[in-house]
This record gives sequence, structure tokens and C-alpha cells, in this order.
Amino acid sequence: MRTLYHYPLHPGCRAVRIAFAEKKLKLNTVLIDPWSPEPDFTALSAEAMPPVMTDLTATGPVTLAGTIAICEYADEGSSRNPLLPGERQDRAEIRRLCAWFEGRFDFDAGGLILSEKLGATRLGGTPEMATLKEGRAALAEHLDYMAWLLERRDGLAGPNFTLADIIAFSHLSCLDYLGEVPWRERKSVAEWYARIKSRPSVRPLLADRVPGLRPPAHYGNLDF
Amino acid sequence: MRTLYHYPLHPGCRAVRIAFAEKKLKLNTVLIDPWSPEPDFTALSAEAMPPVMTDLTATGPVTLAGTIAICEYADEGSSRNPLLPGERQDRAEIRRLCAWFEGRFDFDAGGLILSEKLGATRLGGTPEMATLKEGRAALAEHLDYMAWLLERRDGLAGPNFTLADIIAFSHLSCLDYLGEVPWRERKSVAEWYARIKSRPSVRPLLADRVPGLRPPAHYGNLDF
Repeated sequence: MRTLYHYPLHPGCRAVRIAFAEKKLKLNTVLIDPWSPEPDFTALSAEAMPPVMTDLTATGPVTLAGTIAICEYADEGSSRNPLLPGERQDRAEIRRLCAWFEGRFDFDAGGLILSEKLGATRLGGTPEMATLKEGRAALAEHLDYMAWLLERRDGLAGPNFTLADIIAFSHLSCLDYLGEVPWRERKSVAEWYARIKSRPSVRPLLADRVPGLRPPAHYGNLDF
Repeated sequence: MRTLYHYPLHPGCRAVRIAFAEKKLKLNTVLIDPWSPEPDFTALSAEAMPPVMTDLTATGPVTLAGTIAICEYADEGSSRNPLLPGERQDRAEIRRLCAWFEGRFDFDAGGLILSEKLGATRLGGTPEMATLKEGRAALAEHLDYMAWLLERRDGLAGPNFTLADIIAFSHLSCLDYLGEVPWRERKSVAEWYARIKSRPSVRPLLADRVPGLRPPAHYGNLDF
């Protein structure tokens, strides 16, 4: 009995859901409001923010927190569909990219846009335009870097589908829900994104809706 | 032939050096000035910041970046002295704590203090007092959290020495060099720190000096 406490437009929560689905491991979910979490939830872990997961192991109940920690736990839960395939240098490159998106991408770009737009919707008020502008400028640079990687390799971290794809996709898909990704100028990134969007592990996430925010028409379209 | 590009008071660089020493794997080092890195160095990886490592593998040369990615690469380099011991839930807790220090601790506390004080020394000028004050207040909270963990477990992530100890120690030791850790009020954290300080993997780091900054007398003292 494995339960993920999540928010649908949180990149890390999306990554955990995709990781468990790729590994064919069942995951129950409980919705958390990050702007007003229940004390029962915040008491679970010092992070006090999703993603947090509880599981029942052979030695007793455990609580896990942190996107990459939970995703690697999923990966180690079964040998099927490894999320960090290859040699140890390949895993180092996958982990470098995971840290890139969870750290730099989120700090410079994704986190600014998401917190401004989602916060304004949830709490009322209007997004701070200067912050949005800063986030959008950084997002353009990160997309250029992704395009550079994708044009040099047959995939983000190489030809295999990996945890780096899952985490990068999770960040971009939250921004895409908000119509914030300038796809037109980045064909290689759009093609990579469309390939991941049609994976069976991803499709259920695309049906999630957040009250007061409707995604653009292309968001759930698997052909784009 | 494995080379780490590093800066002595960068927590991630310290963690990589300790990880390789714990694994008994040889590591050459090249000093980088983060405020004025050479183009040869910034061309190595998109991170353009230490830690960056080059290695020669059976399939050719590789470049690695990112603290946790490189430390896990070290761990996978030999089965000796595992840095993520135990079951997969134990590894999840180790990885949660690694992400905690590399992310939240650095963002809230350590990074603010280090960048203000080291930047002021390296570039001239005086540290911004409001930023230092904010970092110190957050540091006190993080130390309280560490004390809470250490008092409930026989170690940070449990009784074994792990990558979580290495990364937490690396962050604290950079701050300790600057005399920024209020040890007196946190006996359990000070005892944990002193135990790690006397490991053979750590001692060489304590001899590093940064021009213009002299550490406090207790910094290199293994009995404290």
C-alpha cells in the first residue's frame, strides 16, 4: 500500500507518478493543496511539501520525500524498465540532468513562472510581471540548451528513455499546461516532448485539471 | 586518470573529494576560481561551475558534473565502503537528506553566507549584512533540525556512515572555516561533526587554505 501525496501541477509529483507507472508499480494518490496543506500532511516529513510518499515495507512503514529520492526508490523497486540504464557514466549523466531540472531549471525559470501563475490563481491577485518576464527569459535559454542536447544525441541523456526524460518532461508539462512553452521555435524539443506525451505512463496526467485554469487546446493533443 | 575541477570552500567539491577518498579511488584535482573561471573549464560542461570531473573509461573520456551525480559515480566505482548502504528505503532517506543539503540548506542558509563572505573577500567590498543575517537565522533552524535527527537516530540517516553525512559535513565545514557555525548550543551536531572530522578521508581537506581568510583555531582541531 503505497501512497503519494501530490499536487497535479507540481513537476516533482508528476515525475514520481510517471516513474511508478513506467515501473508498473501501483501508486495511490492523495491530493495536497501546497498553499494550505493539512497538519496531518506537514507532520509526515520535514519537507512539508509534496512529493511525499508512504509505503509499507517488509520491515515496517516508511515515509519518503524528495523527487529524485522517490524516483530512484521506484527504480530500485523492480528490475523491469530501468530508469537509469547503461554504465555508471551514463547514470552520472542522467543524474546530472535530473539535478539540472530539479535545481537550476526550477530556480531560474520553471519555479518562478509556476509559483507566480498558480499562486495568483489559488490565492487571488495577479502574477508579478517582472518575475514572469525573468522566468520566461531563462526558460528560453533552457529550451535552447535542451535543443542543443537533443540535436547532438538521439535523446536527452542518450538514446534510451530515462529518469532525465521523466523529470525534464514533468517540468515542461506543468509550464505547457499554462501555455508558457514557446514550442514553435524549438522543433527538436517539441518532437521529444510529443514522443514522451504519448507514453502510456504519461497520458493519465494529461487529464488532470486545476480549478480556475484551463490548459491550451494543444496540451492534451498527442499529435502535437 | 580522473580529474576533479574544484574550489576548496565549495561544499559540493568537498563532498566529491571525501566520497572518492572513502571509496579508496584516486582523484587528481585542479583548482578553479569560481569568480573568474578559465574558458577551458567553462567549456567542459553546461554547469560551468565546480564540481566538474573528467574520467577515462573503457569506452572513452567522459565529463561529469553535479555533486550528487559525481558522488554516486564514485560509489558505483567500487563495492568497497558503500556510501548508500542498506535497503532501498534506506537509500531513499540518504538521497532525501543529500537533496535537502544540496537544495534547501544551500538555498536558505549556507549558500547565502558563503557567497557573501567569499565574494567579499575575493572581489573586495563588504558582505551584505541583511543577507548574512537571513542566512544565519536559517542556519540556526537547519542545525536544530539536524540535532532533532541525530537525537532520534544513531547518526544522520541511521547508524551507518553514508553519503548524507558526507554532503551535510561538506556544507557545514565550509561554514565552520568562516567561523559561522554556532556549535555551543548544539552538542549532538558538534559531536557528529567531530566524529566525521577525524576520518582519514576528511583530514586532507582541513589543511586547505583560501587566500585572505584564516579559519578559527578550532577548525582543524580533531578533538573539537
